Amino acid sequence: MTFLEEFNPKHLTLTVESPTFWRVTFNNPPINVIGLEMMRDLKALLTELENNKTVNVVVFDSADPDFYIAHYDVTVDNELAEALPKATDYTAWVDITVRMSKLDAVTVAAIRGITRGAGSELVLAMDMRFASLEKTKLAQVEIALNAVTGGGASGRLPSLVGRGRTMEILLGAEDFDGALAEKYGYVNRALPDAELDEFVSRFARRVSGWDHQAIVEVKEFINKYTRLPDGEYPLHSDAYWAAVSNPEVGATVERLLEKGMQERGPLEYDLATKIGAIAQQR
Amino acid sequence: MTFLEEFNPKHLTLTVESPTFWRVTFNNPPINVIGLEMMRDLKALLTELENNKTVNVVVFDSADPDFYIAHYDVTVDNELAEALPKATDYTAWVDITVRMSKLDAVTVAAIRGITRGAGSELVLAMDMRFASLEKTKLAQVEIALNAVTGGGASGRLPSLVGRGRTMEILLGAEDFDGALAEKYGYVNRALPDAELDEFVSRFARRVSGWDHQAIVEVKEFINKYTRLPDGEYPLHSDAYWAAVSNPEVGATVERLLEKGMQERGPLEYDLATKIGAIAQQR
Amino acid sequence: MTFLEEFNPKHLTLTVESPTFWRVTFNNPPINVIGLEMMRDLKALLTELENNKTVNVVVFDSADPDFYIAHYDVTVDNELAEALPKATDYTAWVDITVRMSKLDAVTVAAIRGITRGAGSELVLAMDMRFASLEKTKLAQVEIALNAVTGGGASGRLPSLVGRGRTMEILLGAEDFDGALAEKYGYVNRALPDAELDEFVSRFARRVSGWDHQAIVEVKEFINKYTRLPDGEYPLHSDAYWAAVSNPEVGATVERLLEKGMQERGPLEYDLATKIGAIAQQR
Repeated sequence: MTFLEEFNPKHLTLTVESPTFWRVTFNNPPINVIGLEMMRDLKALLTELENNKTVNVVVFDSADPDFYIAHYDVTVDNELAEALPKATDYTAWVDITVRMSKLDAVTVAAIRGITRGAGSELVLAMDMRFASLEKTKLAQVEIALNAVTGGGASGRLPSLVGRGRTMEILLGAEDFDGALAEKYGYVNRALPDAELDEFVSRFARRVSGWDHQAIVEVKEFINKYTRLPDGEYPLHSDAYWAAVSNPEVGATVERLLEKGMQERGPLEYDLATKIGAIAQQR
Repeated sequence: MTFLEEFNPKHLTLTVESPTFWRVTFNNPPINVIGLEMMRDLKALLTELENNKTVNVVVFDSADPDFYIAHYDVTVDNELAEALPKATDYTAWVDITVRMSKLDAVTVAAIRGITRGAGSELVLAMDMRFASLEKTKLAQVEIALNAVTGGGASGRLPSLVGRGRTMEILLGAEDFDGALAEKYGYVNRALPDAELDEFVSRFARRVSGWDHQAIVEVKEFINKYTRLPDGEYPLHSDAYWAAVSNPEVGATVERLLEKGMQERGPLEYDLATKIGAIAQQR
Repeated sequence: MTFLEEFNPKHLTLTVESPTFWRVTFNNPPINVIGLEMMRDLKALLTELENNKTVNVVVFDSADPDFYIAHYDVTVDNELAEALPKATDYTAWVDITVRMSKLDAVTVAAIRGITRGAGSELVLAMDMRFASLEKTKLAQVEIALNAVTGGGASGRLPSLVGRGRTMEILLGAEDFDGALAEKYGYVNRALPDAELDEFVSRFARRVSGWDHQAIVEVKEFINKYTRLPDGEYPLHSDAYWAAVSNPEVGATVERLLEKGMQERGPLEYDLATKIGAIAQQR
């Protein structure tokens, strides 16, 4: 059986636009958190793409116009996550972000909706990001849980937005809308929401027509000059898990869940604004 | 006696907005030059912050709406400056900028008014910069004195504005207003003057609420990927002092002082434009 | 004989605006490709500038308002190109771009018109770039020839536009107009076409007045923090020549020439859009 016959993802959809252009659509209602099944799906996809010499470009979009990826599923059982098949020695999530950042295929995020925490880290691990001007909210809110970003944001933002704006994004933990994300370089460009899909599809179709080996070589040089050594990323993960294993953080997460975290409601729509007050309610 | 009881600064004011949020206001009339007393004040503040495990954020603003920090006081007696207490082996000014760039607390410049030379270097050594859209003039004018920037601008600008714009800022020695400074990444954002104070205060209050240790860890990773090794900065300082020790530069400084440098008048308001012609008047 | 008496360029003009400010105007009708003679001219100019201790700034503009530099002349005889005098062990074109990026004089591109492929690489090797808002089209189209950029674009773009936008420029191979090039940092600034010349001339006159040694020292520090080691660039060149030596690429170039490449006509005006379809017409 080929990969396409075999692949049966639970929380994303794979659309073969052409042999050289694939589309992945995140789809984990109610708000597209990154949970166990989505990680399993992503890891299987990454394994295929690591061996596939045909696919030139993969677009990642969302089935939910309000939530691109809300964040990591805080209810995931860590042992199950770590038991998922992996291709590196890294923790489950870093295994995904590091591998994503090293694929031969060009990875393009088409961001519409809320994209916080691990969602932001996932798009930062892709090669480029296009965002809806009206409907984007990008944020790294980990510091509200007393933690650094565990999947590499502090390693990837500096080469996109520079030192001062990286400080602001990670220490401010606020939402960045499309216009500000573009101004800072957090995304390549913000496009009017009505134009985003056609823009990204046209761009991806164009890239899908190039020679596969040429794409690999172009990316190799850029990666050589812009990627940190892989070994940096486990350090982030270790620091993150050390911080959130503190019982006080566990209590914060409990309070957040009671107030509607991971549900399609006001807390998640406005999480960056509200998380601070809830976290500091001791 | 605690630091707060003991600290009696001459050319700046320290306001304790809360135990975790301090505000430093530069105040050295007539135009906020960085002189001996302000350096003494800054060094005492840095020493405290290097040991303080409570303060999460320090905002630096100015008591003078026209001059944030005009520049280094060209009349400072070097021997006295070097005799000030220091925590590094570096020259007096580099001791300040390097230590500023390494604090645990988040350092935020709220820039309103003229910020040239060492003033620009000081804000570049902070973690982030917000500026008045209408009232900001940022510049590095050292090349008019035949010199490189002595306090690290050429080491810090590249990670904010990239190679080409660093070249333009340091070789053009022109004023950058708020809009252009934002476009280049010289500041994080330029805000309408009427909104600047509230924006920065709100941001700082938010950051002041996070866990101290989490802030330290976030900054540690960002610093690891965006700071040059400390040892680079003495090289800048040596090159600066070698250049300005030339008698021709001394004569230029004399001419500038005769024409109103360090006074609240037309030369200082428009120094970047006028310094070239005066420097080249031989 | 002095250099100025001896220098008799074929495809560019040298104007001595002052002893410290030179202007180079590309002039190789019909569309300013970089051919054998222009490379010979540039190498002679670089040799002079490498030894000249007076010239502080060199502006590079174009005699053709529509084409700044169309691209490399695809009909150049490689053996003749490599036989041109060179100052490095690198291939003919890399010899030019690496040396351009290391001059004592400040190099300023005044971009008006189409600037693709090696044209874009040449301006990326300069210290800064100012562009006509209305008349600029910057692009790296090499991937349409199954190739990486041979003259260093993938090494120089990251420090200007960051990782994500470098990916987009090199993998999308599309035209960037002045506004988008400014937004990304591909150029320092885009100026209204009517203001470009005066802006650049004024800036260059200003820089031309500084102390030569101070310029050298400022550039030395910036270069130290923003230039890749020279040894990276031959790798790009090797990968480029390996790719284009493929007979399939030769056939593509033949088709492009038949359809009007290197002529002043619709294909060259719109090369970035059209090259993909022609390249993929097998």
